[in-house]
Amino acid sequence: MPRKTILPDARISPRYAGVCTFSRYPLIAHVAPENAPPDWAIYGVPFDAGVTYRPGARFGPRAIREESQYVKRYHVEHDLDLCDALSIADAGDSPVRPFDCEDNHKAQLEFAMAIGDPNLTRLFAVGGDHSIALANIRATWQRRGSPAGGLACIHFDSHLDTVDSTLGEKYSHASPFIRAIQAGYINPRRMLSIGIKGPLNTAKDLDFAREHGVEVVTYEDWSQRDGRARIDQFVRSLAASKAETYLTFDIDCVDPAFAPGTGTPSVGGFTSAEVLALLRGLAHHAGDRRGLDIVGADVVEVLPDRDVSGITALLAGHVIFEIMCLDALHRR
Amino acid sequence: MPRKTILPDARISPRYAGVCTFSRYPLIAHVAPENAPPDWAIYGVPFDAGVTYRPGARFGPRAIREESQYVKRYHVEHDLDLCDALSIADAGDSPVRPFDCEDNHKAQLEFAMAIGDPNLTRLFAVGGDHSIALANIRATWQRRGSPAGGLACIHFDSHLDTVDSTLGEKYSHASPFIRAIQAGYINPRRMLSIGIKGPLNTAKDLDFAREHGVEVVTYEDWSQRDGRARIDQFVRSLAASKAETYLTFDIDCVDPAFAPGTGTPSVGGFTSAEVLALLRGLAHHAGDRRGLDIVGADVVEVLPDRDVSGITALLAGHVIFEIMCLDALHRR
Amino acid sequence: MPRKTILPDARISPRYAGVCTFSRYPLIAHVAPENAPPDWAIYGVPFDAGVTYRPGARFGPRAIREESQYVKRYHVEHDLDLCDALSIADAGDSPVRPFDCEDNHKAQLEFAMAIGDPNLTRLFAVGGDHSIALANIRATWQRRGSPAGGLACIHFDSHLDTVDSTLGEKYSHASPFIRAIQAGYINPRRMLSIGIKGPLNTAKDLDFAREHGVEVVTYEDWSQRDGRARIDQFVRSLAASKAETYLTFDIDCVDPAFAPGTGTPSVGGFTSAEVLALLRGLAHHAGDRRGLDIVGADVVEVLPDRDVSGITALLAGHVIFEIMCLDALHRR
Amino acid sequence: MPRKTILPDARISPRYAGVCTFSRYPLIAHVAPENAPPDWAIYGVPFDAGVTYRPGARFGPRAIREESQYVKRYHVEHDLDLCDALSIADAGDSPVRPFDCEDNHKAQLEFAMAIGDPNLTRLFAVGGDHSIALANIRATWQRRGSPAGGLACIHFDSHLDTVDSTLGEKYSHASPFIRAIQAGYINPRRMLSIGIKGPLNTAKDLDFAREHGVEVVTYEDWSQRDGRARIDQFVRSLAASKAETYLTFDIDCVDPAFAPGTGTPSVGGFTSAEVLALLRGLAHHAGDRRGLDIVGADVVEVLPDRDVSGITALLAGHVIFEIMCLDALHRR
Amino acid sequence: MPRKTILPDARISPRYAGVCTFSRYPLIAHVAPENAPPDWAIYGVPFDAGVTYRPGARFGPRAIREESQYVKRYHVEHDLDLCDALSIADAGDSPVRPFDCEDNHKAQLEFAMAIGDPNLTRLFAVGGDHSIALANIRATWQRRGSPAGGLACIHFDSHLDTVDSTLGEKYSHASPFIRAIQAGYINPRRMLSIGIKGPLNTAKDLDFAREHGVEVVTYEDWSQRDGRARIDQFVRSLAASKAETYLTFDIDCVDPAFAPGTGTPSVGGFTSAEVLALLRGLAHHAGDRRGLDIVGADVVEVLPDRDVSGITALLAGHVIFEIMCLDALHRR
Amino acid sequence: MPRKTILPDARISPRYAGVCTFSRYPLIAHVAPENAPPDWAIYGVPFDAGVTYRPGARFGPRAIREESQYVKRYHVEHDLDLCDALSIADAGDSPVRPFDCEDNHKAQLEFAMAIGDPNLTRLFAVGGDHSIALANIRATWQRRGSPAGGLACIHFDSHLDTVDSTLGEKYSHASPFIRAIQAGYINPRRMLSIGIKGPLNTAKDLDFAREHGVEVVTYEDWSQRDGRARIDQFVRSLAASKAETYLTFDIDCVDPAFAPGTGTPSVGGFTSAEVLALLRGLAHHAGDRRGLDIVGADVVEVLPDRDVSGITALLAGHVIFEIMCLDALHRR
Repeated sequence: MPRKTILPDARISPRYAGVCTFSRYPLIAHVAPENAPPDWAIYGVPFDAGVTYRPGARFGPRAIREESQYVKRYHVEHDLDLCDALSIADAGDSPVRPFDCEDNHKAQLEFAMAIGDPNLTRLFAVGGDHSIALANIRATWQRRGSPAGGLACIHFDSHLDTVDSTLGEKYSHASPFIRAIQAGYINPRRMLSIGIKGPLNTAKDLDFAREHGVEVVTYEDWSQRDGRARIDQFVRSLAASKAETYLTFDIDCVDPAFAPGTGTPSVGGFTSAEVLALLRGLAHHAGDRRGLDIVGADVVEVLPDRDVSGITALLAGHVIFEIMCLDALHRR
Repeated sequence: MPRKTILPDARISPRYAGVCTFSRYPLIAHVAPENAPPDWAIYGVPFDAGVTYRPGARFGPRAIREESQYVKRYHVEHDLDLCDALSIADAGDSPVRPFDCEDNHKAQLEFAMAIGDPNLTRLFAVGGDHSIALANIRATWQRRGSPAGGLACIHFDSHLDTVDSTLGEKYSHASPFIRAIQAGYINPRRMLSIGIKGPLNTAKDLDFAREHGVEVVTYEDWSQRDGRARIDQFVRSLAASKAETYLTFDIDCVDPAFAPGTGTPSVGGFTSAEVLALLRGLAHHAGDRRGLDIVGADVVEVLPDRDVSGITALLAGHVIFEIMCLDALHRR
Repeated sequence: MPRKTILPDARISPRYAGVCTFSRYPLIAHVAPENAPPDWAIYGVPFDAGVTYRPGARFGPRAIREESQYVKRYHVEHDLDLCDALSIADAGDSPVRPFDCEDNHKAQLEFAMAIGDPNLTRLFAVGGDHSIALANIRATWQRRGSPAGGLACIHFDSHLDTVDSTLGEKYSHASPFIRAIQAGYINPRRMLSIGIKGPLNTAKDLDFAREHGVEVVTYEDWSQRDGRARIDQFVRSLAASKAETYLTFDIDCVDPAFAPGTGTPSVGGFTSAEVLALLRGLAHHAGDRRGLDIVGADVVEVLPDRDVSGITALLAGHVIFEIMCLDALHRR
Repeated sequence: MPRKTILPDARISPRYAGVCTFSRYPLIAHVAPENAPPDWAIYGVPFDAGVTYRPGARFGPRAIREESQYVKRYHVEHDLDLCDALSIADAGDSPVRPFDCEDNHKAQLEFAMAIGDPNLTRLFAVGGDHSIALANIRATWQRRGSPAGGLACIHFDSHLDTVDSTLGEKYSHASPFIRAIQAGYINPRRMLSIGIKGPLNTAKDLDFAREHGVEVVTYEDWSQRDGRARIDQFVRSLAASKAETYLTFDIDCVDPAFAPGTGTPSVGGFTSAEVLALLRGLAHHAGDRRGLDIVGADVVEVLPDRDVSGITALLAGHVIFEIMCLDALHRR
Repeated sequence: MPRKTILPDARISPRYAGVCTFSRYPLIAHVAPENAPPDWAIYGVPFDAGVTYRPGARFGPRAIREESQYVKRYHVEHDLDLCDALSIADAGDSPVRPFDCEDNHKAQLEFAMAIGDPNLTRLFAVGGDHSIALANIRATWQRRGSPAGGLACIHFDSHLDTVDSTLGEKYSHASPFIRAIQAGYINPRRMLSIGIKGPLNTAKDLDFAREHGVEVVTYEDWSQRDGRARIDQFVRSLAASKAETYLTFDIDCVDPAFAPGTGTPSVGGFTSAEVLALLRGLAHHAGDRRGLDIVGADVVEVLPDRDVSGITALLAGHVIFEIMCLDALHRR
Repeated sequence: MPRKTILPDARISPRYAGVCTFSRYPLIAHVAPENAPPDWAIYGVPFDAGVTYRPGARFGPRAIREESQYVKRYHVEHDLDLCDALSIADAGDSPVRPFDCEDNHKAQLEFAMAIGDPNLTRLFAVGGDHSIALANIRATWQRRGSPAGGLACIHFDSHLDTVDSTLGEKYSHASPFIRAIQAGYINPRRMLSIGIKGPLNTAKDLDFAREHGVEVVTYEDWSQRDGRARIDQFVRSLAASKAETYLTFDIDCVDPAFAPGTGTPSVGGFTSAEVLALLRGLAHHAGDRRGLDIVGADVVEVLPDRDVSGITALLAGHVIFEIMCLDALHRR
């Protein structure tokens, strides 16, 4: 029987009032028994020691909790009340190990594995830098029974994040997907990277993804060539296969005008409207129209100190909402 | 005989000099006799006690006066020199009643009714929050002879603003159009709401507009479906009917990247260029190509404290300019 | 037996992690039984409809919760570990009535009266604008048994806040102390206003305080004349009388360089160091050196949108800490 | 018979409403006959082509007009209602010649000479960079009858501004006082420079002032040595001589914490409170306690783009108020 | 034999480390002999005395050097490693004459003429305001042998910059192209102005360009009419003629959402992605697909004080990269 | 024979022009032979992985290079032209190891050891976070011959930085002085910590310093008690002993109003003027008035993302200047 999410009464506590949880969802300890365990647990990972340029994303969960107070519950396009469809909870923040990326990976993994019911509760990690995706992917994969082939993956980003190592570090924000693919958590032939853009250090940075069969749709593929059709084809095929899919969203896939608050901004990309439409499009494929089966997700790389008007964190809050709506639609 | 608007001589007083009036238009007391009474009077309403989230729009008129110093007079697309076509004046700011929304409505109404010549001078209100639209609509309606059917209305916004009451308050920025429709100032069947977007508190928030026949074109209708055609059809019909039309423009209809300085930002919307094209499009309909007869207007919800580079107020200044150009074209 | 405050383990959850409560104190619902009811309950009042100039202080509680993550527990000067001395809880935010100051007063009063144990739990309100002090003063007074003479009061501010009414509003942030004195909650002859500064609308603005016997020490009295001695004398006398004392702290008493984030800033005032020393001085008087008996308190007028580096909210967090230390010292 | 200054009724038009003039004083064209010609005319000079480092002070008059909306009229320390004592007007902005410093000097001089009644109306220039002081000094000197010995001068600044030329330019903001002294507008032996601080390009930068007998009190002289006594002595002597005195105030004499919005900030200086006390001290000398006879003044170097919270412009507004109070006291 | 550009080793010196040169290219004095003289020399012109509105672009070179640390070397769309294809150097900043636009023109010209080898080294000027384009155009023209017909020119801008004089100044940022055309440095019949937008002071502002045969494609021509085809046609023709072409890029051609840091922002323009695609399109024309022969270039009007998140300077850095890639493609 | 520092000619290259080195000092590779090896080498350490709260100080060297363009050469108080007294160079930035604090320590140490002439060139490290002080202290100690007793140390800070380990990390910014004392680089009985302030996690945080004999002068000791005398006594004794002294300056010892750009701000501290006077005071002790022999130094914890007006970096630039002046005075 479907569980729900109980929000504070806005007649008593307006959106600018109260202790901030993600989108005003209850703390996981406060979820009413009839709604427990939650369908989705959102947790922060205030970690940015994995960055190669500007740090500060450790304050991302806090900023997204704040700005997401203004994320409402009813999705007009989908005609869906998310809080009537799913039980969602804020599981707080993962412990972090700010002085060692690999240790942090382990601490986050242990925390994530213990959240809610591993069979029922899906994990939504909020960064922090992109290195934190790895533990959430791994935890999701393990909680789904460690499927041999790995999970499918939809990846929004300006960067491929498949660098083998940076200054000897193999767990930085440049490497989550090479690690996840090498460990078998993600099936590269079922991985789609959308929005890659900007100059690279070397042509070789494209090699790993191409050699392992990742479907790469650059921003220019999408805006100038056949990228839209390739995305449609990929998603249709994925939906048809009923593959369990992980969705990872680096906010820097959006143009810096829309997401100035990020650590490695890359000019010339999606508008907010375009990226929301892309996300909604993941629900509109395959014969039964049920879209993708999103079994885990993350939103990363929000850096509040560069987000002077808060619009990046506000967008991130809405992206979280859109992604969970995909699951609600799938279950419908 | 057409009256003109006399601007300061830029060879003497550059755009960064002098006491700021809207777009450097004269104070209404300074309008030369041959240009009096003005065709349009722009006045500020520094009121934001009607907001449901972030206040601060009371400083909107001041910021728009400042940034609009850089709004020039000749419209390239329309081949129109606005100041040669109309006499425009800055009528100063309305008195406000910051501790009571309904009292404020009355104070603004009284002020607006007394501006210029009620038969000749059209009213342009600059907010302030969207609650201030109501008094300007009502004043416009009364000055046009209180037409029984109400005025037609073009409404740019992310939100429908047809909530009946908020914490018991019926005159907040969530309610101007339910009030205006119920009072008969606006004819809902001749009202077009453009750019509605973002999640809602409940599906029921759409009911009032739909039940009363308001034409609602969401951002997604416009970008993904038949919204452009529906707008064209609506405007063509309106122009053909020669309906007196009020135009209300909430800056949050534009994406927060273009208008970060607003109190209830909603991600994923129009670019500035798109919204300017939409405004210009209101002039290009009907057989005689004279477009809509705009008899009153407002621009609202500019919140300077979130507008760190001033681009929101600058855009608002240009929107005011574009709207008055519509009237100049209509008179041509 | 003294109760304690249990903080999150910083080895697991660093100060940039986790859902933000004031200074990381537990939510009142989470206080362990042995520490319940708490000695102090801190609650936010996200209300700013009482302002006469720049609004936005409704976001003050949220910002102070954030910045106060970095307020530690051990006071070097007093050699006092506050969390070993008192049980402190975050009671969340009061319901607000943003469209009516007097209604808001009632809603806050009802909320405040219900917090913790009225005999044991003292109330610390965090604004919001200064109008919210009134309900906290009244609740404190009622919870202390509605003493006929009223409470003593230490008042830090640039403004006297004794205006009878503003545009007809008697519950604005210009009026809390005239209301509290008239209602008998505060004894004006035991009230000390410290740090008054800046030009006034009229010389008469000083009359109410003077006529009712409030001891007014302007910034200039303090910096140029006998203000320090007068404060010492007043506090010594108050401590000797064992008067129950309310402390109200408007952040604008500090110079805008130290507290830019406030709505009616007044140039030329205390440094942060000076105001912290003044607060600490309240503990060092009277024969038994136990200082004042602070039975209720507030910190108000933090406006985050003008606090670009967060230093105002950080200072507010420390002021809260200093004030509760006064009580801990008094109980020692 | 004393004339007054009529301000807008704050019950109708709050301080955040209306077209901004300096401190809400009337435009000179709007001064009522009984108050005309005004005792003081404040005018802006939106010019910054004279700077040697960061430009932007051309927007200073606009920002000071805005922030000075909150400068009230009654001075508590002096027990003086400025608007009851003097008729003050905003004379608008001078024309500027942004491409040539000397041309600008001439344009400003011509404008200044024509303001109000040269015998009755004193000139207060608001910069703009410090180069604009020269024309106001010259206009003041000429309007006082071009006294042979030159005016006395009180000069607040971090810099001496006596560089002969910069890249060949003799009218930059580094040179107003060498020009004024060489031309005889200022008597260097009756000139006091207060607050000089920071490293120099060369030891020789001190030579001109020393050789011409300017009394230089560096910040360190004031804070560490006999500077206070020297200021007292100088002012007492000046008051006794009844010398007509020009006051020039570069906002960078205040520490950047209090005045971040300036183009050549110099760390380690006065607090706002200290500088206000210094200004007030100019009224408290000589046997008849009438203080200095201030016959002209300027406040310069406010650069709004670096003044993110507006505190620099707010301070400038209060400095203008304090300076005019000196004249009101002198006339009393 | 092709020369290369040697960058710092990112394993030793990350992009946030080291003294900032444009995109980490070597200072011209440090270029290794085998790579000298460089193919391109980028130099800053920290000059903004030519502006008609907001100054501050003198800090543009510094900001672009900083933000361009993150501009990488391999262009994915062109499959081009710029640093393997060209030798590029940072030639430092031109001397400036901040008090006289014409003197500055001469100083910059002299500096530019002396850079590298006039036959081999092409000049890339980084503003500063648009007035600095003139000297770089002239130096480029002279170094190409002062061709009688003038250079071809691709001009990205919101403004035509063909005003004859402003307050008597003929070398301001409103006039570089009227000067360059009149002097014969640029052939107006081979000049294309892209992105013109916004209202004008007068309809006559369009006359010079039209009368001299400049191809003007306004933003609206491009977005609503045949502008794209006209650009294609013009570029194809230019490529076919093998004309030596100068490219001048005013950052304000991009919408203020993408480039808030500029002095005369004009709302409603290109996105970053659109403008990058336009630049790339210059390489894809003519039979041999070699695109335009860019012999000189500039990027101007970045104003850091309005660029709070640094995205304008970051975009400028990428525009510089894209323009030099055009030359690398042409040489391929 | 004394060596000098050659600065760019300000008549050609103003302070807003050119590639930024610290205070415009030459890059070490560009020092003229007669001035080589330099007396002081300033180098950046763009490292912030050692922080326990807000990161971002890795951008400190870049920001200080920028803002220090305005640090001039002649010290008025000391009557000293620093550039005539010492040869100073910018040695660029140290390589960093952002993913491991101990590795970074080694990389910085190796870099520092190789700078200039170890017997003649003194090292000035610019952070980055305070963890980078350790390698500079160690390198200084080794270059002075690894004196058995360790160096004397003057330490400005809000924090003692003697925490043994944080989450297992022994090389974080909380630990440089426990490491330096334990390793014998610093003699704790000749170490003076000035300006300690703010609450602590536990009373035990004071133990290490006290037990090892560090002289601790808290801000309150200095402002309220005998701290000034204790500093004088300590410095006089140190000067008399001719001890080689290291000076480490954490910008957070200054109040956040003066230094908002830092990662662990602590309210209620020194003004800029006070801290400059303290630094200058180090030169004025002992019989021969030669002050302390500063053999190495650092300035750390400038975090540009929180330094919106640049005043923190500007102050840091002046602190560097003041510290090198101490050495110049000592050599005089």
